[in-house]
Amino acid sequence: MRASHQLSTGAGEALNGIGATERLAEQGFVVWFTGLSGSGKSTLTEALAPVLTDRGRRVEVLDGDVVRTNLSKGLGFSREDRDTNILRIGFVANLLARNGVAVITATISPYRATRDANRHLIEGDGSVFIEAHVAATFEECEARDVKGLYAEARAGKRTMFTGLDDPYEEPLRPEVVIPSGTELLDASLDRVVRFLEQAGLLQPIHAGVSP
Amino acid sequence: MRASHQLSTGAGEALNGIGATERLAEQGFVVWFTGLSGSGKSTLTEALAPVLTDRGRRVEVLDGDVVRTNLSKGLGFSREDRDTNILRIGFVANLLARNGVAVITATISPYRATRDANRHLIEGDGSVFIEAHVAATFEECEARDVKGLYAEARAGKRTMFTGLDDPYEEPLRPEVVIPSGTELLDASLDRVVRFLEQAGLLQPIHAGVSP
Repeated sequence: MRASHQLSTGAGEALNGIGATERLAEQGFVVWFTGLSGSGKSTLTEALAPVLTDRGRRVEVLDGDVVRTNLSKGLGFSREDRDTNILRIGFVANLLARNGVAVITATISPYRATRDANRHLIEGDGSVFIEAHVAATFEECEARDVKGLYAEARAGKRTMFTGLDDPYEEPLRPEVVIPSGTELLDASLDRVVRFLEQAGLLQPIHAGVSP
Repeated sequence: MRASHQLSTGAGEALNGIGATERLAEQGFVVWFTGLSGSGKSTLTEALAPVLTDRGRRVEVLDGDVVRTNLSKGLGFSREDRDTNILRIGFVANLLARNGVAVITATISPYRATRDANRHLIEGDGSVFIEAHVAATFEECEARDVKGLYAEARAGKRTMFTGLDDPYEEPLRPEVVIPSGTELLDASLDRVVRFLEQAGLLQPIHAGVSP
């Protein structure tokens, strides 16, 4: 919980509501969703983005598909190509966050060292990095198999499949853990929103109104 | 001069100085320097960036080297690879500009259709695209040859060299033309700054102070 020093009790917020809102609007951050294929990263991203927009933030979503089309065409799924792709997303996320944007990324990003490299880059430029582990297990993801990818991987039609013949290195100290295999979307979304509020990155809905 | 409808005489600016400043700070734009190798794009970029920062803008520079390292490693100088590189820069420039950033790019970007594709993307998302032709001629650039690249190209040690065995397609309707082969840097910089001021994208230094 690296951002815990930014926790605020809300006391005194009513005194300088507008100032606080403006300050909040300046602090860039990156919510970095990581987890297995089919764990719910994109669904969470789609739910979170409008919440951030509604609270007055500029928001950009960098999801795997958009980035593979516009930044990483031609890259495959070897360890080196995955790393290149994830580092590129980190590079762009950092450019945006250091200009005050709230960035959400949704990629498997299976390798710990690569996620940590992005954390280092982003924190080094003064933004907040929130590693959010979308932690549905392999068995849970395979049981749902929304896109049929697990069946293809089992049938040998896909190689370098994360969790099967390519590793997923779980975050050791993620800011948020989301048990997406057993929890409803609303509850998962609430976990992320509450973390951002408590870290001082998102204005609580009723700030300055409560007694 | 696509941005000319935003020209302002300055009249009335003193009446709403702060409001105007805030509005200006929101409008993202991209100054897209294009021109031959050695024409002065990077020098102009380095001179322009601190001026924009001093006038209260968030600024990001996307120059060829930074991008080739972080976004386009592995790409060469074939037409297809150059296009991919330039379109990636346009993609990132657009993400930044639509979040209010003043972006400066410094690349040869030799192909007209590719520059126009970026203009289309960036204008389509509500930002202003300023094509700034750094127009030192091939002969002027070769005579200076600061990095020795022209000599290498003449000696056959470099192929796909813009202006020699790869075309440079001059802008047809650039917002700014900079005769960088015959003009001092200060005068060139002044051309760009005045354009941005007149287009309403940059606060004049003494706005609201003059009678």
